[in-house]
Amino acid sequence: MSVTADDLVSRHQPTLDDALAAIRTRGYFSAYAESPSPRVYGETAAAEGRAAYDAWLGADFPVETPGATGRVATERSPYGPELGVRYPRVLADPAALDTLLAAAQEAMPAWREAGPAVRAAVCLEILARLHARIFELANAVQHTSGQAFVMAFQAGGAHALDRALEAVAYAHEEQTRTPATATWEKPAGKGEPLRMVKTFHVVPRGVALVIGCNTFPTWNSWPGLFASLATGNAVVVKPHPRAVLPLAITVQAARDVLAEQGFDPNLVTLAAEDSADRIAAALAVRPEIRVVDFTGSSEFGDWLEDNARQAVVFTEKSGVNTVVVDSTDDFAGMCRNLAFSLSLYSGQMCTAPQNVYVPREGIATEQGHKSFVEVGGGLAAAVDALLGDDAKAVEMLGAVVNPGVLERLDAAPGSGRVVLASRTIEHPAWPDATVRTPTIIALESSDTDVYTSECFGPVSYLIATDSTDASLDLFRDTVRAHGGMTAAVYSTDEKVIDAAERAAIEAGVALSVNLTGGVFVNQSAAFSDFHGTGANPAANAAFTDGAYVAGRFRIVQSRRHPAP
Amino acid sequence: MSVTADDLVSRHQPTLDDALAAIRTRGYFSAYAESPSPRVYGETAAAEGRAAYDAWLGADFPVETPGATGRVATERSPYGPELGVRYPRVLADPAALDTLLAAAQEAMPAWREAGPAVRAAVCLEILARLHARIFELANAVQHTSGQAFVMAFQAGGAHALDRALEAVAYAHEEQTRTPATATWEKPAGKGEPLRMVKTFHVVPRGVALVIGCNTFPTWNSWPGLFASLATGNAVVVKPHPRAVLPLAITVQAARDVLAEQGFDPNLVTLAAEDSADRIAAALAVRPEIRVVDFTGSSEFGDWLEDNARQAVVFTEKSGVNTVVVDSTDDFAGMCRNLAFSLSLYSGQMCTAPQNVYVPREGIATEQGHKSFVEVGGGLAAAVDALLGDDAKAVEMLGAVVNPGVLERLDAAPGSGRVVLASRTIEHPAWPDATVRTPTIIALESSDTDVYTSECFGPVSYLIATDSTDASLDLFRDTVRAHGGMTAAVYSTDEKVIDAAERAAIEAGVALSVNLTGGVFVNQSAAFSDFHGTGANPAANAAFTDGAYVAGRFRIVQSRRHPAP
Repeated sequence: MSVTADDLVSRHQPTLDDALAAIRTRGYFSAYAESPSPRVYGETAAAEGRAAYDAWLGADFPVETPGATGRVATERSPYGPELGVRYPRVLADPAALDTLLAAAQEAMPAWREAGPAVRAAVCLEILARLHARIFELANAVQHTSGQAFVMAFQAGGAHALDRALEAVAYAHEEQTRTPATATWEKPAGKGEPLRMVKTFHVVPRGVALVIGCNTFPTWNSWPGLFASLATGNAVVVKPHPRAVLPLAITVQAARDVLAEQGFDPNLVTLAAEDSADRIAAALAVRPEIRVVDFTGSSEFGDWLEDNARQAVVFTEKSGVNTVVVDSTDDFAGMCRNLAFSLSLYSGQMCTAPQNVYVPREGIATEQGHKSFVEVGGGLAAAVDALLGDDAKAVEMLGAVVNPGVLERLDAAPGSGRVVLASRTIEHPAWPDATVRTPTIIALESSDTDVYTSECFGPVSYLIATDSTDASLDLFRDTVRAHGGMTAAVYSTDEKVIDAAERAAIEAGVALSVNLTGGVFVNQSAAFSDFHGTGANPAANAAFTDGAYVAGRFRIVQSRRHPAP
Repeated sequence: MSVTADDLVSRHQPTLDDALAAIRTRGYFSAYAESPSPRVYGETAAAEGRAAYDAWLGADFPVETPGATGRVATERSPYGPELGVRYPRVLADPAALDTLLAAAQEAMPAWREAGPAVRAAVCLEILARLHARIFELANAVQHTSGQAFVMAFQAGGAHALDRALEAVAYAHEEQTRTPATATWEKPAGKGEPLRMVKTFHVVPRGVALVIGCNTFPTWNSWPGLFASLATGNAVVVKPHPRAVLPLAITVQAARDVLAEQGFDPNLVTLAAEDSADRIAAALAVRPEIRVVDFTGSSEFGDWLEDNARQAVVFTEKSGVNTVVVDSTDDFAGMCRNLAFSLSLYSGQMCTAPQNVYVPREGIATEQGHKSFVEVGGGLAAAVDALLGDDAKAVEMLGAVVNPGVLERLDAAPGSGRVVLASRTIEHPAWPDATVRTPTIIALESSDTDVYTSECFGPVSYLIATDSTDASLDLFRDTVRAHGGMTAAVYSTDEKVIDAAERAAIEAGVALSVNLTGGVFVNQSAAFSDFHGTGANPAANAAFTDGAYVAGRFRIVQSRRHPAP
């Protein structure tokens, strides 16, 4: 017996309601368990997910893309193996894009007519299918991004699902804040009132393009994908050539659910390419494309903002994440916490700290005064302690995602005094994996040419400043000019914390204060923490708020007098 | 005794609550009486308002603008007289703009810290002051736009106040949908939960620029002005050189209230210019300007969208408003209703109909079949009946706003067959007023070079099409390509109405159906009708919805563990 759209609405209403409540309170909420434990997901889930992943390797991935020509295989795991999965290839050829985009456009009217409630339910059903494939997805994320398995399961699976659900919830709220119909009755003195009945249609902007990244293929792409889909747009998904499989699985799940519900599966299409094809740029400026979501380099993000003028463009680009160290009453906790943030996924998170500002004269701690050199020593020792056991270290570090990261890491010692050298780790299970520990380089505050741009990867700078005031000025000015996704401050002085908060507001970046425990500056929790602010050059939008969804659709109204 | 911010919040809470309820239901609501009757506003209000207006004529307007140099007087009433009001002049000189924008920026931090509730209350107090000056404003709008007095009172006064209140309500809703603080508590199995307290700051984008227009100096400028101000931005108001006084009064009222409440009055500044100064373009691309609201030509609107890349740009530009006539069961009512829309303010509304598509074979009516020529005749007769008495006609037509309108009107007979000729009317009270009745020109559907661009003013086209289907296709394609603020359909066939509604959705334009009574296609009611859709080239935004306010501020959060 087939499941109707109404069935889906009923089935997913409780989850949607919970998500809607969560975005209003921004407290803790999660709809998808983050523990890969067999006690949560069952004894066989891990092996089945791994088998499902393995079955794709070296095979044609069964997804159809209108306009595609032949197939392309572009993925190699940062852990070593070629994936060899072959996807339909879309060429940057006007006729191919005509076909793809015409198919997307043709799919839209029925989806538009379905309305916000059905679209939300269909999106939640797609998320449910993805959740059922979370171990398969975790393997796919691991072997494209280089994330360690547990991180791939959490950030690439459970947390990405939460972010997608958050986007669907905001989209639903935004579309339904205007009622579908209204009655307008204007008093007319002693005469009959003027009466009109009005209908408000949610009209999608057009075809949306999602351009995925290498490091977080699901977490960074799903919010835009589901925000656009939930608001009635068709979505073309253009994955990073090194990280196709997680999004191919996504597109497959979406197309399955859409087709089952009688919608045209071309509402969600996969546009895979050879990295030389450059179809993202060709697609982004097509008149049919009215929304673009992008995560990646500032260079291409800025190009998109400048050139995809027919579209609303949401970008997350690069930036310089900052830690201001003023003082602490838990020196060990501070060093442990920062060491974790520097080490997790080898610093290959857009949220990982890079610039650690410390007064040249040192800082006050509960252990007494610590010199600048001692602060660096404490941090280096904490990293060493965290990563001392190679077998455990690889579960923290994951693998280096691409050769560019390795080049920057190798060049880093030339830029300053090495406080902590990077070392190479042999992965016990994956002999061809590229695994490196983070390096810490000490700089002077005058070395602006080094630290005012992003050095993506396991490189951080310990920067000697004249004072905490000077640190705060550098923080504000650097983030204003060069962007930043995160910032942190350590201080025992509430006045300094207030000043840091003002600097963060003026820089337009989220601030974490005195993290010494189990919360880390580079982690943002769906439904509670906003990811990015849209208020500095690192991103022009946030995951996820009203502004992130409001521009993806328009309201078109009609009005008439009621029948007498 | 001074009025505190808390007093203002209490005083205006009921109005704000009513407005918040109205934007959720989009039913009828108005907070400002639209009748200029002495029974509503008191016996002396009209004379006092006129005297207040007269007192400005030929005088220095008492408003200070940082960076201004000397004064400029640029206004001449479409009814004849020079206004001669002298305003501080802002030159397109980098040093002058530095001074102006620095003053605006310095004013912002305290306004940001005041929070959404106080900002909304201060905005509502400004609206209350403007409401108290509604007769003065009506005179100022009349003698800058050329609107007749009652229209200036309603559209330029009461309805503009309602639109401004609507913008403040959306701004308040949008800023408060994220709570100011939240507690996040993540379960941790058997251990202590992870706890964080979070603070969410509403952070304005920066300095906003409002660029006013000649025809609706208040109605079209206030929504953007108050949306930006309510969300924490400073606002520079750049009026059209021919329509400064209504916005000068606005800026004066805003600065008075801000100063009384201890805020820096430079949160709202007036940037008047000589029309040769071109300061709008110079201001719009300044890095300090982060929001631009513009009403005017497509040429400058497109330029702003292309060049003011550092800002969020909201534009209302030109378009081609359409009426599709298929059939009617009230031919006289249809003609009367359309005649009103063509005549009101001499067709100088961005919402006035221009293209009336009628099948070449004529239409069915309750009086039997009417040929294409008879439809034109009915419409012409209705205009003549409406405007037959010169003394009454001028109260409908107002005056021609500027020489460009007159030139287009004079050239119109050359473009087709004249169904109704324009005639000149002597204004009984203002001998130098330029008053013209509308002309109607019959065209063939092949005359696309004539009717696919806006002919702003009292010119409309009666266009013979092959069929209603052909009319709907022309409607959809023309609005998609050239934009439109309004559309209307007349039909007795629900299938045609459905098809028109689909065409309107695809064109992205609001549709009015079978208007034969006291509601007119060129009028939109605040709180219920959206003005513009943002879904076609005539405007990239709507008055007023979530998307109109969401991008004017960002959320910047901080988080820390709670004190143990």
